[in-house]
Amino acid sequence: MMKRIGSKKTLVLAAVLFAGVNAFGMSDVDLVKKVANSGMKAIPASQLEVLKLVDNPKNPITKAKVELGKKLYFDPRLSKSGIISCNTCHNLGMGGVDGVGAAVGHKWTPNPAHLNSPTVYNSVLNSAQFWDGRDPHLEAQAQGPIQAGPEMAAPKSLVEKRVTSMPAYVNEFKKAYGDNVKINFELITDTIAVFERILITPSRFDAFLNGNMNALTAVEKEGLGLFIDKGCASCHNDIGLGGTMMPFDASKYDLNVGGFTGTKDGMVKTPTLRNIEETAPYFHNGNVWSLKQAVKLMGDIQLGIKISDKETEKITIFLNSLTGDKPEVSYPQLPVITDKTPRPDMN
Amino acid sequence: MMKRIGSKKTLVLAAVLFAGVNAFGMSDVDLVKKVANSGMKAIPASQLEVLKLVDNPKNPITKAKVELGKKLYFDPRLSKSGIISCNTCHNLGMGGVDGVGAAVGHKWTPNPAHLNSPTVYNSVLNSAQFWDGRDPHLEAQAQGPIQAGPEMAAPKSLVEKRVTSMPAYVNEFKKAYGDNVKINFELITDTIAVFERILITPSRFDAFLNGNMNALTAVEKEGLGLFIDKGCASCHNDIGLGGTMMPFDASKYDLNVGGFTGTKDGMVKTPTLRNIEETAPYFHNGNVWSLKQAVKLMGDIQLGIKISDKETEKITIFLNSLTGDKPEVSYPQLPVITDKTPRPDMN
Repeated sequence: MMKRIGSKKTLVLAAVLFAGVNAFGMSDVDLVKKVANSGMKAIPASQLEVLKLVDNPKNPITKAKVELGKKLYFDPRLSKSGIISCNTCHNLGMGGVDGVGAAVGHKWTPNPAHLNSPTVYNSVLNSAQFWDGRDPHLEAQAQGPIQAGPEMAAPKSLVEKRVTSMPAYVNEFKKAYGDNVKINFELITDTIAVFERILITPSRFDAFLNGNMNALTAVEKEGLGLFIDKGCASCHNDIGLGGTMMPFDASKYDLNVGGFTGTKDGMVKTPTLRNIEETAPYFHNGNVWSLKQAVKLMGDIQLGIKISDKETEKITIFLNSLTGDKPEVSYPQLPVITDKTPRPDMN
Repeated sequence: MMKRIGSKKTLVLAAVLFAGVNAFGMSDVDLVKKVANSGMKAIPASQLEVLKLVDNPKNPITKAKVELGKKLYFDPRLSKSGIISCNTCHNLGMGGVDGVGAAVGHKWTPNPAHLNSPTVYNSVLNSAQFWDGRDPHLEAQAQGPIQAGPEMAAPKSLVEKRVTSMPAYVNEFKKAYGDNVKINFELITDTIAVFERILITPSRFDAFLNGNMNALTAVEKEGLGLFIDKGCASCHNDIGLGGTMMPFDASKYDLNVGGFTGTKDGMVKTPTLRNIEETAPYFHNGNVWSLKQAVKLMGDIQLGIKISDKETEKITIFLNSLTGDKPEVSYPQLPVITDKTPRPDMN
């Protein structure tokens, strides 16, 4: 297949170029450029680059903080009842969600606005947290559900008393922050956020963008192209493939339940599409269970276009390639309570 | 210190014996004999012996079944609501319990008889399961809470439909039991029990009985001696240090709440004392939070004796040596639902 070209030097260069083209396939060159123009970005292949991306200069990630944050994340004693943990609604074994329409918390109370629990995986990549995007930082997010009455229902002081009553926790805080550490609610939630910051899930989509042209199948590549051509990437972009605030018109949502109508500026947080296959049901109100239906509805509601069955099929196949590798998490052994630990309160 | 004895051969023998005595310490010889006479037994040091002890000839333990059983154990979709798993009430990070007085389940319902969730750790060593000992086998135990209205509230058929609707589960069942496997409720709960069978936690007490005389401190040894002398080991014996049916007079329990009065023969299951430090609150009704208070009350109620503060202190110190090493459990990634998976039902 190689053309005859004059000098030996030119021949070598051409061979390298053609080898490149062979590895890419000509169509992949176009696709990679199209992805770049769409604003979609890969999770970096280098662990160090990922770490730079997710780190918090105000509270840098260390192993000791991650281990402690993991314990706090899994500890149901951070809730008033003692039986609801962060992991209850953001289950690390289920795509980082609870798999129910509206989150259910303390005293079996559903979320008053019928809001669906967003995934904790890759949530550090969001530029906005919460459906109304009221805070950009995971640290602030972690404070919300612990205190919210229909979620974990624990006042700050209760959380502080529970944690500081257990010597094993106090020792771990000293190990993570030094002997003079002041353990308060903010430090507890900041430490949970440190753990959450490392919950990044690189997928085959990222491998493709990072240079492995065989990481996606032909149909997945076609779906990716359609995803961009149809306009999906205009909201689902950057590394999070979502996570930013976008215009939202609740009246267009026939399926709207719960009364959430976005911010006063008419905005809503676009959810990440990473691990979307694992995070049904969909939308802010968790009212749609089928990913295909969700794709079609988004075309209809947000883009004002019809996406055909065939196109939906291919886009969905592409979306499934966003299911990423989860960090291995060893289930933590939690500190033992003492006589000073405030008792569970079911009321 | 060695006596002069005639022949060289006798000398060697004496050296070995004295070496033995030195390693034991004379008092340990008595203590080890006392433990043996009490009926208390160690978890074997050999992994193979442990495996023989916990295996089920009707459904032998294999790695594939353990991995699958672990997923089912952590899967909240085995409950009607989709948010309660076996691990919710038998939390592997909290001594295998929930740390609340009475278990709370579906629709925030407390256990109607105010019964406290027993630990899953070492539960295979129990000769009786449930507080009323109504079944000897873990396999039967696993069936109970999944179906019970105030617990996971899932009818058999719902559990079967949920599990068989997920191809990843079906594949794992085939891997564990062969391609012709019939996945029904009983096989699902049998597989959970396979995982539970390996949740054995050898402690320093076992190391002591298995020959490491330094595994317990002097005070712990004293506490162990007292534990036996006072009669505690008359119920808390065998390898489980409990787990058998014993006479029970509910009227003696000033603290009785919930109306549980034992079997019609006036019996109750003696709980294991392994990991007792981690499994507060205590007793069938979870009404006592202090281990020291529990020790004193048991002397009073079950043994008809007063145990002094000093003795209680030492016995409690010994009991803390029963906190065992937990098997490392990697948090499982659960199968993804499909359009066929029955939806969560909060009602």
